[in-house]
Amino acid sequence: MIRFTNDYSEGCHPSILEAMAATNTEGNPGYSTDPHSARARRLIQAAIGRPDADVHILVGGTQTNATAIAAFLRPYEAVIAATSAHICVHETGAIEATGHKCIACPAADGKLTPAAVRAAVAAHPDEHMVKPRMVYISQTTETGTLYTLAEVQALRAVCDELGLLLYLDGARLAAGLAAGGPSLPELARLCDAFYIGGTKNGALFGEALVLLNDALKPDFRYNIKQRGGMLAKGWLLGIQFETLFRDGTGAFYTSLAAHANQMALRLKAGIAALGYPFACDSVTNQQFPIFPDGVVEALAPDFGFEFSAKPDAAHTCIRLVTSWATPEASVDAFLEALRALA
Amino acid sequence: MIRFTNDYSEGCHPSILEAMAATNTEGNPGYSTDPHSARARRLIQAAIGRPDADVHILVGGTQTNATAIAAFLRPYEAVIAATSAHICVHETGAIEATGHKCIACPAADGKLTPAAVRAAVAAHPDEHMVKPRMVYISQTTETGTLYTLAEVQALRAVCDELGLLLYLDGARLAAGLAAGGPSLPELARLCDAFYIGGTKNGALFGEALVLLNDALKPDFRYNIKQRGGMLAKGWLLGIQFETLFRDGTGAFYTSLAAHANQMALRLKAGIAALGYPFACDSVTNQQFPIFPDGVVEALAPDFGFEFSAKPDAAHTCIRLVTSWATPEASVDAFLEALRALA
Amino acid sequence: MIRFTNDYSEGCHPSILEAMAATNTEGNPGYSTDPHSARARRLIQAAIGRPDADVHILVGGTQTNATAIAAFLRPYEAVIAATSAHICVHETGAIEATGHKCIACPAADGKLTPAAVRAAVAAHPDEHMVKPRMVYISQTTETGTLYTLAEVQALRAVCDELGLLLYLDGARLAAGLAAGGPSLPELARLCDAFYIGGTKNGALFGEALVLLNDALKPDFRYNIKQRGGMLAKGWLLGIQFETLFRDGTGAFYTSLAAHANQMALRLKAGIAALGYPFACDSVTNQQFPIFPDGVVEALAPDFGFEFSAKPDAAHTCIRLVTSWATPEASVDAFLEALRALA
Amino acid sequence: MIRFTNDYSEGCHPSILEAMAATNTEGNPGYSTDPHSARARRLIQAAIGRPDADVHILVGGTQTNATAIAAFLRPYEAVIAATSAHICVHETGAIEATGHKCIACPAADGKLTPAAVRAAVAAHPDEHMVKPRMVYISQTTETGTLYTLAEVQALRAVCDELGLLLYLDGARLAAGLAAGGPSLPELARLCDAFYIGGTKNGALFGEALVLLNDALKPDFRYNIKQRGGMLAKGWLLGIQFETLFRDGTGAFYTSLAAHANQMALRLKAGIAALGYPFACDSVTNQQFPIFPDGVVEALAPDFGFEFSAKPDAAHTCIRLVTSWATPEASVDAFLEALRALA
Repeated sequence: MIRFTNDYSEGCHPSILEAMAATNTEGNPGYSTDPHSARARRLIQAAIGRPDADVHILVGGTQTNATAIAAFLRPYEAVIAATSAHICVHETGAIEATGHKCIACPAADGKLTPAAVRAAVAAHPDEHMVKPRMVYISQTTETGTLYTLAEVQALRAVCDELGLLLYLDGARLAAGLAAGGPSLPELARLCDAFYIGGTKNGALFGEALVLLNDALKPDFRYNIKQRGGMLAKGWLLGIQFETLFRDGTGAFYTSLAAHANQMALRLKAGIAALGYPFACDSVTNQQFPIFPDGVVEALAPDFGFEFSAKPDAAHTCIRLVTSWATPEASVDAFLEALRALA
Repeated sequence: MIRFTNDYSEGCHPSILEAMAATNTEGNPGYSTDPHSARARRLIQAAIGRPDADVHILVGGTQTNATAIAAFLRPYEAVIAATSAHICVHETGAIEATGHKCIACPAADGKLTPAAVRAAVAAHPDEHMVKPRMVYISQTTETGTLYTLAEVQALRAVCDELGLLLYLDGARLAAGLAAGGPSLPELARLCDAFYIGGTKNGALFGEALVLLNDALKPDFRYNIKQRGGMLAKGWLLGIQFETLFRDGTGAFYTSLAAHANQMALRLKAGIAALGYPFACDSVTNQQFPIFPDGVVEALAPDFGFEFSAKPDAAHTCIRLVTSWATPEASVDAFLEALRALA
Repeated sequence: MIRFTNDYSEGCHPSILEAMAATNTEGNPGYSTDPHSARARRLIQAAIGRPDADVHILVGGTQTNATAIAAFLRPYEAVIAATSAHICVHETGAIEATGHKCIACPAADGKLTPAAVRAAVAAHPDEHMVKPRMVYISQTTETGTLYTLAEVQALRAVCDELGLLLYLDGARLAAGLAAGGPSLPELARLCDAFYIGGTKNGALFGEALVLLNDALKPDFRYNIKQRGGMLAKGWLLGIQFETLFRDGTGAFYTSLAAHANQMALRLKAGIAALGYPFACDSVTNQQFPIFPDGVVEALAPDFGFEFSAKPDAAHTCIRLVTSWATPEASVDAFLEALRALA
Repeated sequence: MIRFTNDYSEGCHPSILEAMAATNTEGNPGYSTDPHSARARRLIQAAIGRPDADVHILVGGTQTNATAIAAFLRPYEAVIAATSAHICVHETGAIEATGHKCIACPAADGKLTPAAVRAAVAAHPDEHMVKPRMVYISQTTETGTLYTLAEVQALRAVCDELGLLLYLDGARLAAGLAAGGPSLPELARLCDAFYIGGTKNGALFGEALVLLNDALKPDFRYNIKQRGGMLAKGWLLGIQFETLFRDGTGAFYTSLAAHANQMALRLKAGIAALGYPFACDSVTNQQFPIFPDGVVEALAPDFGFEFSAKPDAAHTCIRLVTSWATPEASVDAFLEALRALA
């Protein structure tokens, strides 16, 4: 079985495993108060060009989103997100479980626009409704699409105008960086907070939450602990980001995603060459081709992928995901099989 | 100023005020453990034909909805409702504040259909998403429309099929009863729980929550107290429903709404006769006529109403609401003014 | 049955009932945006000497406490209170239901001391524990005792020193005012927020929450609505406080409690004259005498009271409560019966 | 610096690191649906003698406690625990953040008794208070003490009598098993749920929650996801418990703690031989000796430990913790240094 199921099917980049083995018995204080975590934080500050940023590394994405959003908002405040957003769909109501409503906005290609944000705010004018206070976007989105620098700048402008925080979920931020999306320093200038995903880009686990807005910084560790995200052996998080950001620029981190994107684009080109359409035009490591049902059935025994949608009675849209660990040979095997079905 | 702003602009039916004055110094135990509350519960049980029902009278609608939904659901369970539903829009995230997601479904005329419920459940297949567990409907809806008996039966059937609870928000239930919607005994057979609204139908305040499903009954008073809804002088709630349901049938209660509906239909007929359209075809005490902007501006100094929508650049949809206390003369004055503007 | 069960067994002072009858059909906008509510707010501002205060009138005490505390605290912050405090014991975990821990401190006579506050803060030094952020006191306390001005000043000083908010639950504030406790203007200078209780002092219901600290004011109505405390016919709250504070000084409001206290002290003197001890030395409308079990049993058929404690195998401490409505004859009947049992 | 600071200062047992390296690139489905996790669950079921148990492996202890307690309780239900319990003190209000009150009971040596449970239930008789529904104990306790089989049986009996769930926090369960506390099968018979701690006994992280009571099993994975505890690369948890329980009996797992306990008892014996007292009589891997302040100051530069208490002005109680990784030489170096200070 060759898997294009997701980008978290493998363990970690070998250099991370080596670092963990090398430090296994060194003895470290707990709860991310260790030197590895401190170094990881400094390396990330350097890579984003913001030595004043607070950096907290948590274990997983849902945990990071819920912890951050619950920390940032007052009880009656709500977060604006695309209907397809991870927090709206795939987190089992984790945000609502902290008491906050997600205002879901229809968004073409999974991307929120200033107009959508403006409409959401206009629709909530008084105290009989929740108060929109935060915009949540993902880079890359759930459908693999990419916010351009201009698009994030436009969202920042509308946030400034309407008194909203801008938060970016970076579970797949590396794919966005590698695909030419806004750089880490640009995001650090534009967002109030964002996270740099490790789980889907070479780490065993770990998401580095970056707080830029000073008002969001005080007491943040209390929130981590209360929401169950304070890892006892916190240096495990430190070591992983110390490794991923060892160059202090994000170059190594981005290079892992560059491979994933390259593999995805190879898939895309091969599939397009056979005349199959795509649900959306993704330039990153998630591709959503549409095949006749028979093709999907024929591929299923040998290739792992997720069902995405049924655009019509005879066709199925599937999701193909590549990662830092996807071999070129896997891509070629898929295209070979597809060609054989043509 | 003649008000069609809402159905809670006046105090209460004179008979309620009399009952409160008559009992003011009698001395009663607190927290709805008094004889008036006991009698009110029995009268409601009689009117709905379910002596086994548990009846709890709370002060307000948002409080009742939030208390009931939080009591009925496990933390990861969600409630399905129309996008226009009160809990989705006008309760400042009260349901989310108790930890639960509202799954909003587009619904023509504010009415949820079995197909919409089925689609909502189908879209939430596994533990990465919330689990739909409850269907929330309002009788009458936010736009004054009415569920027929057949429609509620169809929702009950889909709830049974999919393992969902059916809950009916009856803030304006009286208007539904008076307009020929399902009767109290029919609703008591079809719903797991529903509430009988007092605030908008002759009471100063008070909503009688009826629990039919035995699984929802245990310990319910703990939920009321925890959510801040346990009124110290609970007999004030008892006295009001004792008065409204004094006949043990709901006839007096329904008669108050019958007047409100009649006034609304008089408004509707008069407006229609002048050729103005309506946003929806309401047969109850809320009407949504669409006027040229100039007409709305001309009416505004003398008549109270709420803005509803801007269907196009030149027109405005307003909401006109009548109540048990609306004089026929007020209706006629409005129609007169409107005619003068034609 | 003569009731000393509690101070919310009767309806309201006749002048409130008259005001409600007089305004029943006048028509008012909802949600406390009406002129009565506005006037009530101004009268309270005058009585406390703080025209800058925000005043919000809610229906009940548990609702007011939970709404205020949830609004004031960030998720990981906690409130310090006496073990006997209403929020620690008698609100069915309403505060915890909003996510906040109550740090319970042993407190002689139900009164929190600066030393207890200091110890509670010292015991919570870092992010592995909740962060104490607020001190909750009641005037009068659950056992009828009274904070003196000096005691509240001392608590204010420790709050200033430790960065804590001071909040006073005034369910029985009138009893405290009448008994010579700190005045309304003094409390308004010392507290960040407090509430002026109506339910237990002549109103049908209603607690006027006063926000003094500017940081606590923004968006407060969102919290009221979200927690289910926004009464549709909000003018009912306005009318009651308009009546209670009609003189703009609190004199009428305090006079109701003065009667209650006087009745309680008459009880106290009579009981003490018969040689019975008290659990604590209360100068307000709650008295806690200790009787031999046989005496309690003999009184029970004719007099209503609550069981308080079993100090030893042969004795029972009961709670006797008086109110603005307690007739002197009831007190004398109790003392007569007690004398007959001696 | 030789550390006795805690039992989570080192990484993991070498065999776990080897297993992680060996499986790093094998490719696995996410969210604990992989074969390693399945095998780990079966091995744990075997070790506890309950093939019917549901086993869910989460990342950390606070997360596990909060997820389980929030899943098990209805909103108004509360958990009874010792005042020193981890959930009462060291989880930053994580339980309250899910809406539930912890009822803290004074408990000698950190151990809850049937009498304390009975008293807690008796103190919460009605709906104006939270409803006690669960007993939380830790094996071993925060002070290193041990529940005997008879003590757990007695707690089970009182839980049965009073309708309470019994939940055991097993962060240091291995220490309890190694010290002769109730066995895994005995705990599986007595508890409704408990967890088997990995973090403090040879794993990098991971706590295996065992659900015995059928009523607690349905939909549990929804709770894990909603509370942020569903690890994307869940097989990392599976591999660790697969390794720790590879023998299907818990023998290897227990052997790691046996070493920790042995090192602690060696410390205890050496300290006692020098005449120093202990705050409590611990037979497991946490020891709480009391030294003159000067001794503590002299030890501090070379040895890591936590401050525990100030029993008097001249003495300090410290916490010494050993682990599976503590070398005997470290113990001897400590005792040597202590002897030199005598």
